[in-house]
Amino acid sequence: MSTNKDYKWIGTRPIRPDGADKVTGRAAFGADKNLPGMLHAKILRSPFAHAKILSIDTSAAESASGVLAVMTSADMPDLASEMGEAGESAVDFRDLSHNILASGKVLYHGHAVAAVAATSAKLALAALKLIKVEYEELPVVLEIEDAMADDAPILHEDQFTPGGSKDKPSNVAAKMKLPRGDIDKGFAEADIIIEREFTTPTVHQGYIEPHAVTASMSASGHADIWCCTQGTFVVRAMTAKVLGMDVGKIKVTPSEIGGGFGAKTTVYLEPIAVKLSEKTGRPVKMVMDREEVLRATGPTSASVIKIKLGATNDGKLIAAQGSLKYGAGAFKGSPMAPGCMCVFASYEIPNFLIRGFDVVLNKPKVAAYRAPGAPMAAFAMESLMNEMATKLNLDPIEFRLKNAVKEGSVAAYGPKFPVIGFVETLEAAKAHPHYSAPLGKNQGRGVGTGFWFNIGMQSSATINVNESGSVTVITGSADIGGSRASMALFVAEELDISYDLITPLVSNTEEAGYCDVTGGSRTTFATGMAVVKASKNLVANMRKRAAKTWGIDIDDVTWEDGAAIAPAAADKQPLTMAQIATSAAKTGGPLTASASLTAQGAGAGFGVHICDVEVDPETGKTDVIRYTAIQDAGKAIHPSYVEGQYQGGAVQGIGWALNEEYVYNDKGVLQNFGFLDYRMPVANDLPMIDTVIVEVPNPSHPYGVRGVGETPIVPPLAAVAEAVNNAAGVRICHLPISPPRLLAEIDAK
Amino acid sequence: MSTNKDYKWIGTRPIRPDGADKVTGRAAFGADKNLPGMLHAKILRSPFAHAKILSIDTSAAESASGVLAVMTSADMPDLASEMGEAGESAVDFRDLSHNILASGKVLYHGHAVAAVAATSAKLALAALKLIKVEYEELPVVLEIEDAMADDAPILHEDQFTPGGSKDKPSNVAAKMKLPRGDIDKGFAEADIIIEREFTTPTVHQGYIEPHAVTASMSASGHADIWCCTQGTFVVRAMTAKVLGMDVGKIKVTPSEIGGGFGAKTTVYLEPIAVKLSEKTGRPVKMVMDREEVLRATGPTSASVIKIKLGATNDGKLIAAQGSLKYGAGAFKGSPMAPGCMCVFASYEIPNFLIRGFDVVLNKPKVAAYRAPGAPMAAFAMESLMNEMATKLNLDPIEFRLKNAVKEGSVAAYGPKFPVIGFVETLEAAKAHPHYSAPLGKNQGRGVGTGFWFNIGMQSSATINVNESGSVTVITGSADIGGSRASMALFVAEELDISYDLITPLVSNTEEAGYCDVTGGSRTTFATGMAVVKASKNLVANMRKRAAKTWGIDIDDVTWEDGAAIAPAAADKQPLTMAQIATSAAKTGGPLTASASLTAQGAGAGFGVHICDVEVDPETGKTDVIRYTAIQDAGKAIHPSYVEGQYQGGAVQGIGWALNEEYVYNDKGVLQNFGFLDYRMPVANDLPMIDTVIVEVPNPSHPYGVRGVGETPIVPPLAAVAEAVNNAAGVRICHLPISPPRLLAEIDAK
Repeated sequence: MSTNKDYKWIGTRPIRPDGADKVTGRAAFGADKNLPGMLHAKILRSPFAHAKILSIDTSAAESASGVLAVMTSADMPDLASEMGEAGESAVDFRDLSHNILASGKVLYHGHAVAAVAATSAKLALAALKLIKVEYEELPVVLEIEDAMADDAPILHEDQFTPGGSKDKPSNVAAKMKLPRGDIDKGFAEADIIIEREFTTPTVHQGYIEPHAVTASMSASGHADIWCCTQGTFVVRAMTAKVLGMDVGKIKVTPSEIGGGFGAKTTVYLEPIAVKLSEKTGRPVKMVMDREEVLRATGPTSASVIKIKLGATNDGKLIAAQGSLKYGAGAFKGSPMAPGCMCVFASYEIPNFLIRGFDVVLNKPKVAAYRAPGAPMAAFAMESLMNEMATKLNLDPIEFRLKNAVKEGSVAAYGPKFPVIGFVETLEAAKAHPHYSAPLGKNQGRGVGTGFWFNIGMQSSATINVNESGSVTVITGSADIGGSRASMALFVAEELDISYDLITPLVSNTEEAGYCDVTGGSRTTFATGMAVVKASKNLVANMRKRAAKTWGIDIDDVTWEDGAAIAPAAADKQPLTMAQIATSAAKTGGPLTASASLTAQGAGAGFGVHICDVEVDPETGKTDVIRYTAIQDAGKAIHPSYVEGQYQGGAVQGIGWALNEEYVYNDKGVLQNFGFLDYRMPVANDLPMIDTVIVEVPNPSHPYGVRGVGETPIVPPLAAVAEAVNNAAGVRICHLPISPPRLLAEIDAK
Repeated sequence: MSTNKDYKWIGTRPIRPDGADKVTGRAAFGADKNLPGMLHAKILRSPFAHAKILSIDTSAAESASGVLAVMTSADMPDLASEMGEAGESAVDFRDLSHNILASGKVLYHGHAVAAVAATSAKLALAALKLIKVEYEELPVVLEIEDAMADDAPILHEDQFTPGGSKDKPSNVAAKMKLPRGDIDKGFAEADIIIEREFTTPTVHQGYIEPHAVTASMSASGHADIWCCTQGTFVVRAMTAKVLGMDVGKIKVTPSEIGGGFGAKTTVYLEPIAVKLSEKTGRPVKMVMDREEVLRATGPTSASVIKIKLGATNDGKLIAAQGSLKYGAGAFKGSPMAPGCMCVFASYEIPNFLIRGFDVVLNKPKVAAYRAPGAPMAAFAMESLMNEMATKLNLDPIEFRLKNAVKEGSVAAYGPKFPVIGFVETLEAAKAHPHYSAPLGKNQGRGVGTGFWFNIGMQSSATINVNESGSVTVITGSADIGGSRASMALFVAEELDISYDLITPLVSNTEEAGYCDVTGGSRTTFATGMAVVKASKNLVANMRKRAAKTWGIDIDDVTWEDGAAIAPAAADKQPLTMAQIATSAAKTGGPLTASASLTAQGAGAGFGVHICDVEVDPETGKTDVIRYTAIQDAGKAIHPSYVEGQYQGGAVQGIGWALNEEYVYNDKGVLQNFGFLDYRMPVANDLPMIDTVIVEVPNPSHPYGVRGVGETPIVPPLAAVAEAVNNAAGVRICHLPISPPRLLAEIDAK
């Protein structure tokens, strides 16, 4: 199923450049940055999920032992509510500022209220207790539909639903509507109609590495920030905005990153650390603990999704209606919009109506999580697709093949698809031995499919050639999934030199050209495209140098096997890259090339997962016993890391399906704030996740790359649920399928 | 005397970007790098100036408390004697390796023999005492002419004088001969002939910051080096060579640098730190103390220079003969060649013969020092020029004007001069009030002139534009004299935006394009040229973006006042750089530009210094009471730093003339190994050094820049000596003019 193109390096599996340092424990992560004279800062967090702040008295803390500075939101500029582009989606910078340090109100339990910088973390923690905050408690709203109610407690008195009442503030921050055709007519023509409501809980991205930053403000007002992030440029942009600085006065250097999954595309600590460093003239380090991560950094939205689906007896979808309600947490900005855009994206449906709602409530503000919004939507839609297939007595993959989008299909969200690989992926799943393997007692199988747009955005790359002919490739795209290896492979292929000669770097915001966040599955696609373009520029330059050396025209010089050759001039021996590099001083100076672009044509990614479970009818415990993730990568640059993405996404989806959920008490206080209680799957919970890489090249990328990071988290929720349905003879519409809930379902049956 | 060109930024004096951090003590120098788990390494040095190493037993040291590794030259690869380009001049990598750690023989007192890495510097020092080295002492040779004698102790048994005996090894490593015309005929036609021999002592560059490095070898074999250096790429190249690594496996990051003056263009500690880090798996820090710096890092050559000069009665030079002997220290490579090339370079002399000798002896290997080789040559030649002027009864500046090289003159070292500013500089000196100011009792005035080629070599620059329109300019040229400010000024002028919007960086060897060392007065010239070229590329790109935005042809877009304008399209409002940057995503992606080049046409620099001294006839103490340095800068980009170069060079030359010298005992042991005994001028020794910037633009540079850093150290030796001659009525031929020596001369008279 691989492309025919015969590559030397693309598609191979060399050791990642950062590998040895990671496995030997020498790689430096966010919390590993230490500077002489460094202070440690800690954050005072709200004990209430919803309250007015009447006063903050920091005087006692300021004079406490070891304390050098205290800050509150009063130390940050007042910002107007202004939407700006930062990261994958737009952000309201006033909201961002107020999430970093509460202003006027606290909106969730754990909301940051003040910060203290002291000579040790212990002294900073001690001083937090000396800060006196007077609160006026307000009623708490935690559930989406409660928050949408007419009499709901209102989080933001100045927030009105667009198109709604201009007098009455609302927790519904945004609405969306995507229509096609005539749904009344569509449902009238349907032979079978199913309608169900699905809910998914608040779940956290669950990265192993908590947020960490060390910041130092220089005497001239330049801030240096070291942090673990998916996007140094977005950290820079956000920090600049909330502190009222120019981005040119901030340098963000990325550490290695211990997981992000979308959530490390915003800032919590960075502006605080910079401001405290400015106040104290010393570097300031901040590291969250797990409790802070779970209480106060972006989980993803809980959702309430209702879908009505109509099909004809010959297995064609004819009408669909969806209502997608996403909880945003304390500030607007759930992934409702991509959820709406994805929900029907995989199928040709002549008539549909999608409505979406973005709802604020007293939980932490959500952050992006892998294919933001899509897994919940796919859980609902794919569950119904499975149920519909059963009702139609069709094989679930056959049913999907009858309705699958293909080249030329108009996507539910508007554009016409170019070459896509959904059909090929479905067929690969159908042909996979797993799909027809026998099942035992209490076992069941389910499939689910997933779609993600993938994105392009801006990237830059620079290639510097050493005098020995080895090269450095510099980008500003955080490496969260092995992208350094991929960038080196692109360069190796383009320059036709050994991978070992290439040092791929993830540089800081001053030394790298601008790159948007690593997210949305864009880095291998878009930054890779910039690397390929820079490589081509470099090859052209090296051909020019050879032409100059030989005194012939550049058009008579080609590049093969890492060397310039003059096919028409038999007397010219090939000039290797090392030779050209060594003599560069004589032919025009050092060899360097750069490229930047706004990448167009991110290829949509489709995945199909097959899941087998065994349910213990006595306890309600579900074990995943076999799992296969099949997905179109366009072209797998480094197949091991593509497979890793498939596996990682599947595992996160399995956790979401089976175990993960935020458990709140009625005061809005998270009860399971550690990894013992917030139960994510670990290695011994799971079988090896099998993978199949389908390759339907993306015509917009020089090597056919499609993003692969997001899609794999989309199919598992429905695949697992359907497997449980089939194993236990129940119909799951509410996640997680935790043992008590499943036992109740089984008992009810 | 300024150029007419009307610049907005070039020629202004903004605050240097690194200024605030330096004056507040926050700038990080070589010794300021600390890493977790870091070890400290110390060096065992030879107690003899010349000895065979019979054996080294490191076993006791290896098992000493806190010691993690010991190394000797046996840990480095055996290299063949191979000349390579590194830094300003060629280097023999075997010699370099053997200077870093002695192999077989020690060649000077303080020569490194072994190194120990331990958990603290104290434990490393303690362990040094446990290393047992058996030596066989050899006779020591310290003086140039002793080393040239037939029966001299030989340092290198495999070193033969080129063109000399192939059987008998010699301490004369190289010879040079530069002839013109017929000197016998020339001297025969001369009306006045003077011949004298001059000597100068070994002097040290005297940078305040000792050599310091922290190195860390990663688990994958990548070495990170942080150090204070004038040339990160030369540190990389040399370290790679002596350790047998590819340059692509080494990253060198420059710290701020506390002076280098040419001497921080080689390596002493870096390969040792890397190797010890490799052996221990931990970062290793090494910092020299002052004694190590003076005993074992590059001073510059002592010299013995004999010149015979013939002139006609009308004041024209007609013949000259020079013999220039330079001591190289323990390994070949004194600055004899540039000395020979400079000695007559300022004058039109129809007949001359120059002979040079590079002589090894038992002192530390010399390193480059500001205009390497030229000050000693100019001391001799300019002293004779002053004496000749007196004999001819001509004003010394008038005499020089009669013989000065100008555009079209053929330089003594070969090429024809393009536009140069020697005549303009002499005339500026003659017109300066200082030159005609009255003198008091025991006071005297002297002039001296100086020449330096200046060099071009390779440079690269990258400019990244932030989304706000502020920019970063990246080069790999160490900033030893304010070059960051100059680079920012070039960008400000080219982009026509405020200097404050520009962040100039000196990046490491992986993130910057290749740049040769900061030395030879090349950075503002050559790296500046790369910055200007990158800026022009960027402007072209921004015009293209504006043209795209407006839908017009790029040729209809010009760049003015930091904005694109369409002169022919009245309806198009100017698009500012900030606007173009903000919308870059829509017009093709991030704005970035780079350029690299081998700079051609470094403009020769000429300086004229006027010195007044007052001599105390009772003690022989000389005080400089007034001093003016006049020099052609071509174009002063940041005049304050040009003036700083003039002042700094003058002061170093004054110290060389009056006080500085290495004092050895007969065993070759340096007696004055600290700044109390090695007496450099300090602020209260000197008057304010007045400066005049002459600007005769260099036609090869877009802004007319000539290097300014080297030339100012060339004139002072003769200017001071002549002032002393005139004040005390003696004739000084031997430096330094220390009180006891001068008192002896006065007493002899």
